[in-house]
Amino acid sequence: MEIKVLRNVLDANDLIAAQNRRDFDAGGCRVVNMMSAPGSGKTTILERTLRGLTGRLRVGVIEGDVRGTLDADRLAAFGVPVVQINTDPHFGGECHLDARMIRNALAGFPLDELDLVLIENIGNLVCPAAFRVGEDRKVMVSSVAEGDDKPLKYPLMFRVSDLLLLNKIDLLGHVDFDPDRFRANLARVNPSLPVIELSARTGAGCDRWLDWLAGAVAER
Amino acid sequence: MEIKVLRNVLDANDLIAAQNRRDFDAGGCRVVNMMSAPGSGKTTILERTLRGLTGRLRVGVIEGDVRGTLDADRLAAFGVPVVQINTDPHFGGECHLDARMIRNALAGFPLDELDLVLIENIGNLVCPAAFRVGEDRKVMVSSVAEGDDKPLKYPLMFRVSDLLLLNKIDLLGHVDFDPDRFRANLARVNPSLPVIELSARTGAGCDRWLDWLAGAVAER
Repeated sequence: MEIKVLRNVLDANDLIAAQNRRDFDAGGCRVVNMMSAPGSGKTTILERTLRGLTGRLRVGVIEGDVRGTLDADRLAAFGVPVVQINTDPHFGGECHLDARMIRNALAGFPLDELDLVLIENIGNLVCPAAFRVGEDRKVMVSSVAEGDDKPLKYPLMFRVSDLLLLNKIDLLGHVDFDPDRFRANLARVNPSLPVIELSARTGAGCDRWLDWLAGAVAER
Repeated sequence: MEIKVLRNVLDANDLIAAQNRRDFDAGGCRVVNMMSAPGSGKTTILERTLRGLTGRLRVGVIEGDVRGTLDADRLAAFGVPVVQINTDPHFGGECHLDARMIRNALAGFPLDELDLVLIENIGNLVCPAAFRVGEDRKVMVSSVAEGDDKPLKYPLMFRVSDLLLLNKIDLLGHVDFDPDRFRANLARVNPSLPVIELSARTGAGCDRWLDWLAGAVAER
């Protein structure tokens, strides 16, 4: 019974996601849904991204948080359109963004003036993986500080993603993270997932990520 | 409407949590529910804990994961009773433990031979905070690698906890974490939350945590 109800929730979500998809297409913009555990560095990556894409692509951001506008404030400093979604009205706050939240956020968002919309999902490796929001690509961020066992423990997130950003590589040597073991664990759940290793803190590897984004937009 | 349904879910959960509570009391054991983001170091802390409490307290572990027995395998090596809960049957896996899952795990668990049961919740800073499981104490782990803004972004978790373990302090200096800013952010959401700073990797600060656990058991 419970599984059936959840399936209905996901089916209803997919209908709204398809409406979002049509709006994104009509506006001519690509949409990337960025997901990770709390503190993996999504917002710092987005800061690097907005700085790096200035003059190259017109970017907007939809920022999801349980509460507050900390991240939206950091990103609005780059002069791009930013909408904040707070999921707090529910018990403890919803732990993921869904298609309806994105739909509500789109009112007044200038889709036809943008090439790329980056969605920063709630920090959570479980439920965000199950909810489509109308995106073109799902990108997950995993930090080496989180350990090399994560693919085995949160397999769905690693399976549904189109790209993995392995962040905080500047910490290698300071944390118990074996890159070979991580690659082997990843191969067990999604051997075809592309990986870009980077450090949003130092900037290492970030050019490859910007090129990947530019490529995703160019595919249109 | 939706909020009402969620409230009913939590009310039903609380009834089962109260049954668990009675069983724990009847068995004469204290129960600590450990929560954190993925990769904050809960399992490594538990390894230190089991090693440190050998001969001092009789400890059992209930291990929650979306999938797999990686953590349970690590902890069973210490020769203590370990039960693994996998939340995977649902869509993408449930993102939290609830009282019913703990109740099911108790069958065959030797409560009357234990002083302390440690529950390792699913790695998630949102929903686990909302579900009581019959525990005496909620302990959250936050790693300095996750950043100093987490209290503002996941306030409920910081509000419901009885103790905060600030882990990976060996990484201070390698990550953008300002201890003063963290304390100030924490003071905004829960000024009375006790904090123990430690590194499960090096062992620094772990004695204070073991003493806190021994104190919680002694209070009975």
